[in-house]
Amino acid sequence: MAEQLPNSDPPAQDTADQEQVVDPWSVSGGSDGRIDYNKLLEQFGCSKLTEDLVERVERLTGRPAHPFLKRGIFFAHRDLQEILDCYEKGIPFYLYTGRGPSSEALHLGHLVPFMFTKYLQDAFNVPLVIQLTDDEKSLWRGLDIDEARRLSRENAKDIIACGFDVSKTFIFSDFEYVGGAFYRNIIRIQRCVTMNQVRGIFGFTMEDNIGKIAFPAVQAAPSFPDCFPHMFGQRKDIRCLIPCAIDQDPYFRMTRDVAPRIGHHKPALIESKFFPALQGESGKMSASDTNSAIFVNDTPSQIKDKINKYAFSGGGATVEEHRARGANLAVDVPWKYLNFFLEDDARLATIGEEYGSGRMLTGEIKKELITVLTDMVSRHQRARAQVTDDVVDAFMAVRPMRCL
Amino acid sequence: MAEQLPNSDPPAQDTADQEQVVDPWSVSGGSDGRIDYNKLLEQFGCSKLTEDLVERVERLTGRPAHPFLKRGIFFAHRDLQEILDCYEKGIPFYLYTGRGPSSEALHLGHLVPFMFTKYLQDAFNVPLVIQLTDDEKSLWRGLDIDEARRLSRENAKDIIACGFDVSKTFIFSDFEYVGGAFYRNIIRIQRCVTMNQVRGIFGFTMEDNIGKIAFPAVQAAPSFPDCFPHMFGQRKDIRCLIPCAIDQDPYFRMTRDVAPRIGHHKPALIESKFFPALQGESGKMSASDTNSAIFVNDTPSQIKDKINKYAFSGGGATVEEHRARGANLAVDVPWKYLNFFLEDDARLATIGEEYGSGRMLTGEIKKELITVLTDMVSRHQRARAQVTDDVVDAFMAVRPMRCL
Repeated sequence: MAEQLPNSDPPAQDTADQEQVVDPWSVSGGSDGRIDYNKLLEQFGCSKLTEDLVERVERLTGRPAHPFLKRGIFFAHRDLQEILDCYEKGIPFYLYTGRGPSSEALHLGHLVPFMFTKYLQDAFNVPLVIQLTDDEKSLWRGLDIDEARRLSRENAKDIIACGFDVSKTFIFSDFEYVGGAFYRNIIRIQRCVTMNQVRGIFGFTMEDNIGKIAFPAVQAAPSFPDCFPHMFGQRKDIRCLIPCAIDQDPYFRMTRDVAPRIGHHKPALIESKFFPALQGESGKMSASDTNSAIFVNDTPSQIKDKINKYAFSGGGATVEEHRARGANLAVDVPWKYLNFFLEDDARLATIGEEYGSGRMLTGEIKKELITVLTDMVSRHQRARAQVTDDVVDAFMAVRPMRCL
Repeated sequence: MAEQLPNSDPPAQDTADQEQVVDPWSVSGGSDGRIDYNKLLEQFGCSKLTEDLVERVERLTGRPAHPFLKRGIFFAHRDLQEILDCYEKGIPFYLYTGRGPSSEALHLGHLVPFMFTKYLQDAFNVPLVIQLTDDEKSLWRGLDIDEARRLSRENAKDIIACGFDVSKTFIFSDFEYVGGAFYRNIIRIQRCVTMNQVRGIFGFTMEDNIGKIAFPAVQAAPSFPDCFPHMFGQRKDIRCLIPCAIDQDPYFRMTRDVAPRIGHHKPALIESKFFPALQGESGKMSASDTNSAIFVNDTPSQIKDKINKYAFSGGGATVEEHRARGANLAVDVPWKYLNFFLEDDARLATIGEEYGSGRMLTGEIKKELITVLTDMVSRHQRARAQVTDDVVDAFMAVRPMRCL
């Protein structure tokens, strides 16, 4: 999967008609540089993830909803009710998510879908497949194939460090796992999709290489349980729920269109907003610009420096102005980051009130954030240090799994 | 690979400007319904396989050239000299050929490349890979995937019956073998080829499915030895020689263009003319029209009936006319078939003289042909009866092979 890339254009408040663009390869906001998520819901035809639905998840799982759910970070879905209906009746489902391994280290935005998927796996006690699209990164970025395979394994370590259950989790690299039942599903899907259709959905042109043109079927296939005979045998009745950022929706719109034509259930989706760059929603978070994001291998002093130097603030220009008008939370990056990663709801509410009203200063909210992220990143680093090559092999082994 | 399909159009001697069309999916002749092979050489940019080269093959292998070589049935090549240079210096090469398994039983035209490949394997004592493109047949003909896999195994039995050496021959179905090193080469190739290029080479359109568009890389990949680590390890210095009908040339023009860009030798080719339908060069030989061809599972009486009833004759309309003018060998199907399958050069020459001059009658040459084909088909059937499922498994096993 392509990573989430927030807006690569600068804010452009006066070019009133700039259209926002969200697809798996680029995300850029509208005229104010921001993403209009309601517009995306309408444009893509997804459903809004309502409070009712969040409460139903809590009732069914018997545990509080993840902050990403309560706070509207995962905000959209397709057919989530049907997954919950199945769960209620004891019909099994599985989770599918993924990553395109284009860089050595993940940044915090990359962790969002995995943290959420870990919660879903625990709450519903379900199997999970994680696709590493090293083939995609070779096709799009010309990444050397051996380098792409190496990055797959390195990224797998960071993913495993999120705490997945090895008895229910299969991580695979396309370069290793494409073949057999998986390849046969790829061909079944490719047979149903024309060049015209991928031009319409993904904007492919005559100048694109034929690997790119065929690739959407590779990302679609894991939505079907018979790609994983070592996990699900030949069962076709098991439904799939895909947690991902909403930029991946085009792949799964295509998949849902094909599914009934090849005798499969449509996969369900639960989709997140984008994690902003340090420079704000209109900045570009990129592995090649280390100052655009906090990475999982940053040191405490790097975290502190980056937040103090680069995190876009919605606070007043002077202390006086700030005390008088308060902070603009809608554009404030420390506030946004805390919404992702500060678990304590009461503390978050207090900060929002204090900072929004101007009683708390920018330096103070940044200090709060530094504490939260330093703690989170160091926990991640400790967990990752435990992930040996043997552990990676265990997660990536094609092995009989009794996971239903 | 697509099978060889001679001209599907009726002869059209007076539509002077009809262009011949030869591509992997259709073959149709020019204004007289016949294929102008010299024009193909020029159009495709292949080299003519000269008598000098045939003599060099005889010298190097220490055995007489196969009739298909001596009689110009394999008539074109690319870089055959370089393969012979390598052979002379002791640098290894391997053979690669294939079949698209679209029908239960092969006809005699399908056997041509395999009979020739068997000769090459024996004469040069080299390893051989045979690709069964069951994925191609699913993408083009909508063949059910399990049916395509079944046909792959059935066709493998007929191929094995041609006498290949199991210690040096690996037969694989794409649905089983795509993956790993093979898939990585597919992606390397796909990265080098755009939609525009496959439109130019193969005539693909916006309405074609994305599997078709990507498929040429799947047929290209076996030209590179590192697709077969169980045979060649990581060696990239081993050259590939591809015996095939000339309609497959577009795939390998593309392959040869890509090869140096991904650090590989260009594959060499040795290419045949088409085997004509019973109805003549302008007829269509098709598995769905059992009267268009002799099949390897035909009975002696079917062979006799088909040849007597359907084999297009270049003989005179009456005995008198025939005696006076002789037969037109250029269009006579029994004569063409004997050129393929009657091994005895002296006998063939005599028949040519006798029949061409009118001393031998159509019924007599047909009788000769019936004897030759009945013998050949019954030998094939006896050999095929020995090919058990275990034998198929042995040829198709991914196993360590010390074949160089």
